[in-house]
Amino acid sequence: MSGTEPPVPTVSARLRRGLEHVAGYGATASGGVGRTAFSAADRQVREWLAGECKQAGLALRTDGIGNVFIRLDAPDAPAGTPPVWAGSHLDSVPEGGRFDGALGSLAALEVVRRLAEEHVPLRRPVEAVVFADEEGNYHHLLGSTAVARGFSSDELATLRGRDGDLLVDALQAMGWDVEAATRTAVRPGDVHAYVELHIEQGSVLESAGAAIGVVTAIVGMGGGHMEFRGRQDHAGTTPMPLRRDALRGAAELLVRLPEVARSVSETAVATCGILHVEPGGANVVPGLARLQLDFRDLDRERMLELEAAIVAVAREVADRHGLEVGYTRESITDPVPLDPRMQELVATVAAGQGLRTLPLPSGAGHDAQNMAKLAPTGMIFVPSVDGRSHSPAELTTWEDIDAGANVLLAMVHALATE
Amino acid sequence: MSGTEPPVPTVSARLRRGLEHVAGYGATASGGVGRTAFSAADRQVREWLAGECKQAGLALRTDGIGNVFIRLDAPDAPAGTPPVWAGSHLDSVPEGGRFDGALGSLAALEVVRRLAEEHVPLRRPVEAVVFADEEGNYHHLLGSTAVARGFSSDELATLRGRDGDLLVDALQAMGWDVEAATRTAVRPGDVHAYVELHIEQGSVLESAGAAIGVVTAIVGMGGGHMEFRGRQDHAGTTPMPLRRDALRGAAELLVRLPEVARSVSETAVATCGILHVEPGGANVVPGLARLQLDFRDLDRERMLELEAAIVAVAREVADRHGLEVGYTRESITDPVPLDPRMQELVATVAAGQGLRTLPLPSGAGHDAQNMAKLAPTGMIFVPSVDGRSHSPAELTTWEDIDAGANVLLAMVHALATE
Repeated sequence: MSGTEPPVPTVSARLRRGLEHVAGYGATASGGVGRTAFSAADRQVREWLAGECKQAGLALRTDGIGNVFIRLDAPDAPAGTPPVWAGSHLDSVPEGGRFDGALGSLAALEVVRRLAEEHVPLRRPVEAVVFADEEGNYHHLLGSTAVARGFSSDELATLRGRDGDLLVDALQAMGWDVEAATRTAVRPGDVHAYVELHIEQGSVLESAGAAIGVVTAIVGMGGGHMEFRGRQDHAGTTPMPLRRDALRGAAELLVRLPEVARSVSETAVATCGILHVEPGGANVVPGLARLQLDFRDLDRERMLELEAAIVAVAREVADRHGLEVGYTRESITDPVPLDPRMQELVATVAAGQGLRTLPLPSGAGHDAQNMAKLAPTGMIFVPSVDGRSHSPAELTTWEDIDAGANVLLAMVHALATE
Repeated sequence: MSGTEPPVPTVSARLRRGLEHVAGYGATASGGVGRTAFSAADRQVREWLAGECKQAGLALRTDGIGNVFIRLDAPDAPAGTPPVWAGSHLDSVPEGGRFDGALGSLAALEVVRRLAEEHVPLRRPVEAVVFADEEGNYHHLLGSTAVARGFSSDELATLRGRDGDLLVDALQAMGWDVEAATRTAVRPGDVHAYVELHIEQGSVLESAGAAIGVVTAIVGMGGGHMEFRGRQDHAGTTPMPLRRDALRGAAELLVRLPEVARSVSETAVATCGILHVEPGGANVVPGLARLQLDFRDLDRERMLELEAAIVAVAREVADRHGLEVGYTRESITDPVPLDPRMQELVATVAAGQGLRTLPLPSGAGHDAQNMAKLAPTGMIFVPSVDGRSHSPAELTTWEDIDAGANVLLAMVHALATE
C-alpha cells in the first residue's frame, strides 16, 4: 500500500457487540432466535437499528415492503450515481440461529459506519441494505423479490404467512402504506454492485480449512407436493401381500432419493422434510401419504432432470405396489451464477488479508440471487461450525466473523472508489 | 328335524331395519358412522335400545362400565343357571362403518326377541350383551376387560379418551355411579358360553366364496413407539452423503417390514399407521422421525420374534446411516385360541343351513378374546365386501347378514337347550 492511498479501515469490536445484542430480539428458550418477518421481535430489531443510525448520523429509509436502506453519500459524486449495496436480512426462521442474515446485515451497517467515521473518500454512495422476510414467512425472499421485480397489489393481496395471516395486514400493522409496497422495484443499472456476507450454513469451508468462501453460484430450487394413494385397511385383518399401503410407496421413494440425486449430479440434493400420513390411526394401513419435496442443483436442466427422475421412480414404485401417485410442482427458481469479476474481487481482497479462500456454490437461496438480476453481485461465505444452521446450534467463530466483515469492508471500499 | 322338536325360529326383517336405523346415530357426512364410546351418539343408541327392550318386554341392565345386558329368562331353569351370552358392541371408531359391532349387537338382540316371541323352551337363560368401548376410546376392549378381570378405582382414574378427557368424568356424565365401575367382573363359570357374530373386516371369506367364517383364534397384538434420531440440517447446504436423515432410516425400516413379517410367519403382520417428522420444514433434513408400530401374530413366541426382528432391522438401518433408534413397547396381548367345541358348533350349524364355511383366524381384536377367559367362546364371521372396514366403505350384503344372524340364532338355541 503506497503512502498516498488512504488506509482501508477495519471493523471494530462493535460488530461483535451488535451481533450479541441483536440475538436478544426474539431469543428462544433453546438459545436460538425466533424473529420471523414482521413479528414483535422484528419490530424491536428495526427500532434498535433506527436508533443506531440516528446516533451515527446516518440516514435510514424503509421501503413499502419493509426493506431498510442506510445510506452514506459520496459528496463529490454526481447526483444519481448508482450506489454500492451491501446487505442481508434480520428476520429468521421460527427456531433459527444468531448469525444467518444478522451477520451480513450488521457487517454492512459496520461497513457504512467505519467508512463514515474514517471519512474515507468515496466515488459512489454506499448503502447497507436489510431485506425484509428473506426466510419467506410470507414469500421466499420477499424483500429482494420486491426490489428485483416488484409485486402488484393483486399479488400482494394473496400472500399469507405461516400462521395464515395476510401480508397486507402485517404491513399495515407495521404502520406502512400498503400501496407503497407496489413501488419497491429498482431498475437494472440503478445499483452499481451488491455484496452479501453470509454464513455458509454447510460444512464445506470447515472441512477444507478455508476462512472465506467465494460463492460461484446459487443453486436452483424446486419444490413440489407428492401424494401416494393406496387403500385404507385394517392393520389386523389385511394380510401383508394384499395391502396397498400408501406409506410403503412413499418410503420406497425416500430410500431411493439419494441414488436418484446422485444419478443427476454430485451436487444435486433432494429432500423430504414434511410427510403426512392419513388417516393416521395406529391400527390402520395408510391410505394416503403426502410428501413435500425439495430438490436443488446448480444447473437448470439437471434440476428439471432430477425432478423428472424423482417422479419416474415414484410412478414405478406406485405401479409395483398397486398405488396411485400424483405430483404437483409448486415452485421453481433458476440457478444463478454470480458475476465472475465479483468472485475475483472476493478472492483478491481475501488473499490480500492473508485469508485462505475456497470457491463454492451456495446450496441455500439468498437475496443475492434476486440482486444478481439488477447488478454485479458477489457473496462472501464464512464457515459454519459443524455446518449447523436454521438451528440454535448455528455458530461462527468471532475470528471468522471479523475476517468476513473485513473482506466485505475492503470489497465495498474497492467498489465505491473504482 | 323330527316333529317332536320345537322349530328353531329364524331372524326377521327387523334386523335389517334395526341396522339401518342405528347407522343414523353418529352418521357422518361421508356415509360412515362416528359413534365413539360415551359420545352423544352412543347415548342416543343406548336410549333407542332401552326403548326397543321396553317395547319387547325384555329386562335391560347396564353395569358400572356401561355394558348392557338384555335378558331372556328360562323359567324352568334352577336359579343361578349360567346364561348363554351373545353380543358385540355398538361403539365405533371416529370414522367407522355401519356393521362393525352393530351387526353382532343387533343380531343378539334379534336372537333374544325371536326366542321370546316364539316362546322357545330354554334350559338356560340367554343374554344379549353390548360391550362398552370395544374400539378403545378409553381402553382397548374396555367393557369386556371390565367383565373378564375388572378395574380398580385407581386404574380407572388414570384412563383418558382420545380427546384427553377422563373416563371417570365420562361415566359420571352418562349418569352412572363410578364406584360401580369397579364391580363389573364376572367369575369363570358364571357364563355358560359366549358367541359373537362379527364382520370379517378382511377379504379372506370373500376371496374363498364362503358365507360363514369359523373363527379359530384371535391374534395376539403388540404396539410400540419407535424414534429415529439423526441430525436436523439445511436441505440446500448439506450434501446427500453428509446427511443423517432420520426419515431416511424410518423409510428403510418401512420398506423392509413386509419381508420381516414374512420371515416370522405367513400370518404375521406389521404396520406403521402413524408417522411424525420433526422439525417438519420443507427445506430441513428431518432430525427426528417417530413411528407407531402395530404387529400381530397367532403365536405369542412368533409375535415376540416379530417385534425383536423389527427392532433388529431398525438398529441395523440406524447404524448404517449414522442414526440413533429407540423403541418402547406400549402394549401386548396374547393370541387367544377359541374353544374347539364352539368352532365345531359354528361349522355344524352353518352346514345345516346349507352355508359354505371356512375356518380362519381373526386378525382384529374382539371382546370374544376377553370372554374366552370366562367361558367357552365362539365367533362367527360374515364376509366384508372388498375387505373394507373401519371406513365408511364398510359393507356386508343383507344375504350374508341374514345368514350370519341365523347361524347365531341356531347356535344360541343349541347352547341354551343343551
